Amino acid sequence: MSLLDNIKRPTLLLDERKCRENIRQMAEKARRSDVFFRPHFKSHQSVIIGEWFREEGVNAITVSSVEMASYFAEAGWEDITIAFPVNMRELDEIDKLAEKINLNLLVTSTDSLQLLTQKLSNRIGIFIEIDTGYGRSGLTQKDIIVIEKIIRGCRQSSNLHFMGFLSHFGESYQARNKEEIEQIYHHGVNDLQQIRDSLDKGPRGILSVGDTPACNFLESFTGVDEIRPGNFIFNDVMQMEIGSCTSDQITICLAAPVVDIYPDRKEAIVYAGAIHLSKEKINYNGQEVFGLVVNLEDEGWSEPVPGCIVLGLSQEHGILRLDPAMFSSLQPGSLIGILPVHACLTADAMKHYLTIQGKPVSMFTGF
Amino acid sequence: MSLLDNIKRPTLLLDERKCRENIRQMAEKARRSDVFFRPHFKSHQSVIIGEWFREEGVNAITVSSVEMASYFAEAGWEDITIAFPVNMRELDEIDKLAEKINLNLLVTSTDSLQLLTQKLSNRIGIFIEIDTGYGRSGLTQKDIIVIEKIIRGCRQSSNLHFMGFLSHFGESYQARNKEEIEQIYHHGVNDLQQIRDSLDKGPRGILSVGDTPACNFLESFTGVDEIRPGNFIFNDVMQMEIGSCTSDQITICLAAPVVDIYPDRKEAIVYAGAIHLSKEKINYNGQEVFGLVVNLEDEGWSEPVPGCIVLGLSQEHGILRLDPAMFSSLQPGSLIGILPVHACLTADAMKHYLTIQGKPVSMFTGF
Repeated sequence: MSLLDNIKRPTLLLDERKCRENIRQMAEKARRSDVFFRPHFKSHQSVIIGEWFREEGVNAITVSSVEMASYFAEAGWEDITIAFPVNMRELDEIDKLAEKINLNLLVTSTDSLQLLTQKLSNRIGIFIEIDTGYGRSGLTQKDIIVIEKIIRGCRQSSNLHFMGFLSHFGESYQARNKEEIEQIYHHGVNDLQQIRDSLDKGPRGILSVGDTPACNFLESFTGVDEIRPGNFIFNDVMQMEIGSCTSDQITICLAAPVVDIYPDRKEAIVYAGAIHLSKEKINYNGQEVFGLVVNLEDEGWSEPVPGCIVLGLSQEHGILRLDPAMFSSLQPGSLIGILPVHACLTADAMKHYLTIQGKPVSMFTGF
Repeated sequence: MSLLDNIKRPTLLLDERKCRENIRQMAEKARRSDVFFRPHFKSHQSVIIGEWFREEGVNAITVSSVEMASYFAEAGWEDITIAFPVNMRELDEIDKLAEKINLNLLVTSTDSLQLLTQKLSNRIGIFIEIDTGYGRSGLTQKDIIVIEKIIRGCRQSSNLHFMGFLSHFGESYQARNKEEIEQIYHHGVNDLQQIRDSLDKGPRGILSVGDTPACNFLESFTGVDEIRPGNFIFNDVMQMEIGSCTSDQITICLAAPVVDIYPDRKEAIVYAGAIHLSKEKINYNGQEVFGLVVNLEDEGWSEPVPGCIVLGLSQEHGILRLDPAMFSSLQPGSLIGILPVHACLTADAMKHYLTIQGKPVSMFTGF
């Protein structure tokens, strides 16, 4: 019985060989650029996949919550940046964690820094989050006085250590080619450098960046000290549309049972809905899609089948628009593959993987 | 210490009293209309909440997957309709389940019926799914020959029993007032009746419908035998926008820690992202929103605060657009409430509830 024969329900397939290749290439690119590689583990949230990074020499990571930091700390990761604004309701957990590992937090205000000074007793690294254009969170060049105060606050603290400046150039997700990505990257790095250079003395700190579009596209990471991409391990339809990966570099695929077929309107219903794929959608060839359709094979999956898309999602239903040719091969009970629009959200929704070699791969599911 | 003081991370609050009131009102409305009440449990997916239904006289339910049926069967539910096209890859599980409980399935083709005849040995109820305009799944009036064949197939089978016609008028989610909802309902019911009336003899079967917009709006359910609403127990911003509930009837609310504040651009960042709320959005007063903001109180939460919305979501970040007045009361560490756009997806993403009396309520999290 083949791997596919054993699949009964929506199952997130993982191509381990290609995942490892994506990791290897990024680690090598970081080495070539002489920047520190601190990959974001929120994309996969798996201790097992974490080990694949360790085998490529990675020993420091990024996560997006205190819980996720605790999960990876328990698995032996001793150098973790929580790249999310500090949640003041978890200071006890943060302090406990910092007793065991090197922990870095993001700060954007003197009030927050003061609270951390009062409440935390263990050594913590402090990154100042900088917003160079994304518009989500972080200080800007205009906030140089606040930035100086935070650095001074760290200097006066016995346990808070200023580490540098961290930014996520998330606006790169709106870009659709290499030139736009390069422009965003160089503009952002220039902003970070200007902020660092405007500080008169004291520790300069490192510059940490690392959205997947830029990290996939760029050949070298000039002007920064650290990169933190996460999504690159999987890639997805969004990265494909940005142009930062080929479909061949997408390493996860949702296997979905076909449950109903409507050849008249060229649609099929699959058991794979919003609770499996997430409701992330993207404009693809002029149409909003929730995923692209591939043929599953025992060794993985095909390229996206032209004209075959995920047209809509309800809770458990996926509605596929298919090429007429596709119908001849399908019947209720067939298995079809879907490349997700946003791999991180699909992984988080699915809560576990199955490699195409048939190995289950668990991930963080909460404490 | 109050309930809110103990909340550290995104937490899905549940107003048990209002939930029970929504259940009670719907059960009573069904009784008044003399229709069978078979609520959809995919919205809450909780054995504990299921008991609140039982206390209102409910003893038959609807679910959307075989796994969910097994979960509720283990908790003593003995009459379950899986209102999702049969997944042919789970026939063993279905047959085992049908050994223990009264199980109903949806069928839309003679091929599927034939497969069920061959593979299932236990008694199964068969609903024919009808599409009266939603365009997702189901047969239509044009398919009367297929419908007749399916009914004949059931008659010839020793274990498959024709139950009737089931439809989900999902197009009601595009409606925005009572008149549109009534039109969709009466058009759909008329379609179902015509199909049933066109069958010359044999068991006529029941008519089962039940989207929440119609079930919330209508005072009586003329022309059908069974209703299956699910979302009505919670309601959400989508139901509010459709006009089928007031904000006061929304019974779940995500408590989200504020982690960053940007008064200049009237925005705050909360720890509540796409993995908590889902990426469902809706046009609200001319703007796309991912939720509405409320003030949390020890006894529940306020009405939506005018001008305060969830503007954007990334994996863990929620970006709130707030009224200037709101800022004076907020700082990192404050807790704010978010009414979800689509309660079922938020519940599924969160995987557990906390009642405003502080009682944890678990839900199905997979086997």
